[in-house]
Amino acid sequence: MKKVGVAILGLGVVGGGTYQTLVEHREFYLKTQNVDINVEAVLDKALDRLMQLGVPEEKIAKSIDEIVTNPNVNIVIETIGGIGVAKAFVTAALSAGKTVVTSNKEMICKYSHELEKLAKKNRCGLYYEASCVGGVPIIRTLLDGVQANRIQSMMGIVNGTTNYILTKMAYEGADYAEVLKEAQKLGYAEANPTADVDGYDSMYKLSILSSMAFHTKIPYTKIFREGISAVNGKDIAYGKELGYTLKLLAIGKNTDKGVEVRVHPTFIPTSHPLASVNDSFNAVYMVGDALGDVMLYGRGAGALPTASAVVSDVIYAATHSDIKYSTFKNTENADKSVKFISDFSSAYYLRLSVDDTAGVLAKISGVFGKCGISLIEVSQIAHKNKTFRVEDPNRVPLVIVTHKTTENRINNAVARINALGIGEVRSLIRVEQ
Amino acid sequence: MKKVGVAILGLGVVGGGTYQTLVEHREFYLKTQNVDINVEAVLDKALDRLMQLGVPEEKIAKSIDEIVTNPNVNIVIETIGGIGVAKAFVTAALSAGKTVVTSNKEMICKYSHELEKLAKKNRCGLYYEASCVGGVPIIRTLLDGVQANRIQSMMGIVNGTTNYILTKMAYEGADYAEVLKEAQKLGYAEANPTADVDGYDSMYKLSILSSMAFHTKIPYTKIFREGISAVNGKDIAYGKELGYTLKLLAIGKNTDKGVEVRVHPTFIPTSHPLASVNDSFNAVYMVGDALGDVMLYGRGAGALPTASAVVSDVIYAATHSDIKYSTFKNTENADKSVKFISDFSSAYYLRLSVDDTAGVLAKISGVFGKCGISLIEVSQIAHKNKTFRVEDPNRVPLVIVTHKTTENRINNAVARINALGIGEVRSLIRVEQ
Repeated sequence: MKKVGVAILGLGVVGGGTYQTLVEHREFYLKTQNVDINVEAVLDKALDRLMQLGVPEEKIAKSIDEIVTNPNVNIVIETIGGIGVAKAFVTAALSAGKTVVTSNKEMICKYSHELEKLAKKNRCGLYYEASCVGGVPIIRTLLDGVQANRIQSMMGIVNGTTNYILTKMAYEGADYAEVLKEAQKLGYAEANPTADVDGYDSMYKLSILSSMAFHTKIPYTKIFREGISAVNGKDIAYGKELGYTLKLLAIGKNTDKGVEVRVHPTFIPTSHPLASVNDSFNAVYMVGDALGDVMLYGRGAGALPTASAVVSDVIYAATHSDIKYSTFKNTENADKSVKFISDFSSAYYLRLSVDDTAGVLAKISGVFGKCGISLIEVSQIAHKNKTFRVEDPNRVPLVIVTHKTTENRINNAVARINALGIGEVRSLIRVEQ
Repeated sequence: MKKVGVAILGLGVVGGGTYQTLVEHREFYLKTQNVDINVEAVLDKALDRLMQLGVPEEKIAKSIDEIVTNPNVNIVIETIGGIGVAKAFVTAALSAGKTVVTSNKEMICKYSHELEKLAKKNRCGLYYEASCVGGVPIIRTLLDGVQANRIQSMMGIVNGTTNYILTKMAYEGADYAEVLKEAQKLGYAEANPTADVDGYDSMYKLSILSSMAFHTKIPYTKIFREGISAVNGKDIAYGKELGYTLKLLAIGKNTDKGVEVRVHPTFIPTSHPLASVNDSFNAVYMVGDALGDVMLYGRGAGALPTASAVVSDVIYAATHSDIKYSTFKNTENADKSVKFISDFSSAYYLRLSVDDTAGVLAKISGVFGKCGISLIEVSQIAHKNKTFRVEDPNRVPLVIVTHKTTENRINNAVARINALGIGEVRSLIRVEQ
């Protein structure tokens, strides 16, 4: 039986859940993993929170120094979040030779190289399963479950807040602003929702996951990002009619031509396994060259689901002496000359509001023809389905779905259509199969 | 960079796929895993198959002795299947200190304790990710991804053949016998389909997976088993009408009262994530006490998906010096006095064929009442939906869904109803939420 001491920095939602999980499961881990994991110390300024969690007074550390100099602390858990203090504390812990387990996606996305270098130098580990998709073991899977494959693509619903909002909009026909307000009231969205709804959170996670999947560093600055704040309920309803479901997807593709990484609202066929991932559930769908399609589904956030990932990393670190530095492998062995594709290919859904006069359709189709874009579907959808309201009696909504084309081509077509003077493109949504 | 030599025993579907994967990805593993995996030797009597795979003549071993005495062979891959030769060869390899990677579910289900004891004695590893759910990394997940949790339950679609048959029956309204014949023609079902359709394959996998999930040996002899050969297309259609989808599920539950393990056709709500796992796809749905619901989905069979699991194990063994014996942990640390529940609780769907006369419903409801079983739904379903044919003008089909009760109670109720002389119970199908 092995004895391991841990310290927890930051006892908020995830840190508090981690403390509770470790305390409540101590006997269970002793029995099933042959390891005795003891919380030696915690660090948090909010003493009332520590009281509420029932942390014994003698375990409350006064400073990070007290923790990194404590010889009984083997593993430091960082659940503070953000860069400043979190990075300073993690740096101190690694410098003192303590293995670090963190749930901090922004820090790992931006500084994994620097931190892994430090970990390697000090012969300790750096684990971050909890940084992506909460309790779903996607990082362990990439490292040790599907590593026999060249991963060709990944598509993930990796943010619970936006998935909750889009699910509500789809099932209740509610407006974005209305659902966001409700989500904030329920604690599913922050008072300042930017990190979630504008796709930053998904972008950090995609950077981490695609770097591991494609064995090369994918900087977040290379990721095309578009959030959900401009999503219109009408498009969700029209899409449903055409057999599509709208999700905020984090997409990575590794093709012969280069790597393509993007976060944006995406229509997928309603029969796709990702289409039925609802509410705050998350999922990652990948294609490996041997394995084919594989999907992991589960809770992407929340105190206990995220604690599950933190503590699974702690147990892994406590029961394995080998450390596999994932990012390090990337820098040292990967092809440095990765080509990133910004003018990526996609199919597109467009909603236009156009004059209700003869010849309009011919003019619009003509623009697509001249831009070299083929169309799958052109539909005056509100005329087909009488439940859709038409707001302006002189205008009609027109929905178009294209075959695969490129960003440059579609943007060119949109500009030309808007210049015709017969209406305008109101929405442009990418479509994946 | 590490050099590792492997030998493959049995170059059939999975062994052949493994050979191809290792040869084709050798450079890729060198670059991404920093390990050079060389196929040193293969063993198979079918020389024409080896020629077809392009195995160089000098790599073809003449006997297992030649392989276990070869100092360049570090890892032996067993993809023969069954017990006899496979177990003898695996025993020889482990005895010689060679780490073994196997896809053999029957052997692992029946002899994992004996083989792990031997592996431990000889300080080598025994890996068997490929024995369950093909390329889906369910074993790695149980060992190193969700180990922070007490797993409370698992429900799996772990056999591709039966899922293909049930999907066809559901979508095409075809009969069992007809679909089985078609599946055999396409190579999805064996000439002797017993292992798949009678649930033996699912039973072996459930034994392995629930042993790992519940940290105690679950012998296959404790598993209640019922196959799909008696499934009637009518029940699939009636179930659909009631919002249920029929799947062959491998179910394990670990409750305060004991462990309950069973394989049988099961109705689940059509909105359940497992309900949309179609064709030969597999999935395992688990509930952990911290993590909540989690699902892994992917290809449960086939040459390359299964090779993905075999080769991922080979890479793991080649890049980690720590060996975690999963079954060993169970025997040494688990509670020896596990209680198995045979009289388990479930909700039930029953289809009866009864006389079309007044008072029949009252008599039948009376039996359920006397047996202490509450009903959720009683429906003369064929009267509600005119597309259902009624075969006997004097008889009507009656569909009943019960609340949770026990096996003993429901069997008692069925016997009493059949004794009434007013009709009989034609189908009894368990229902899970």
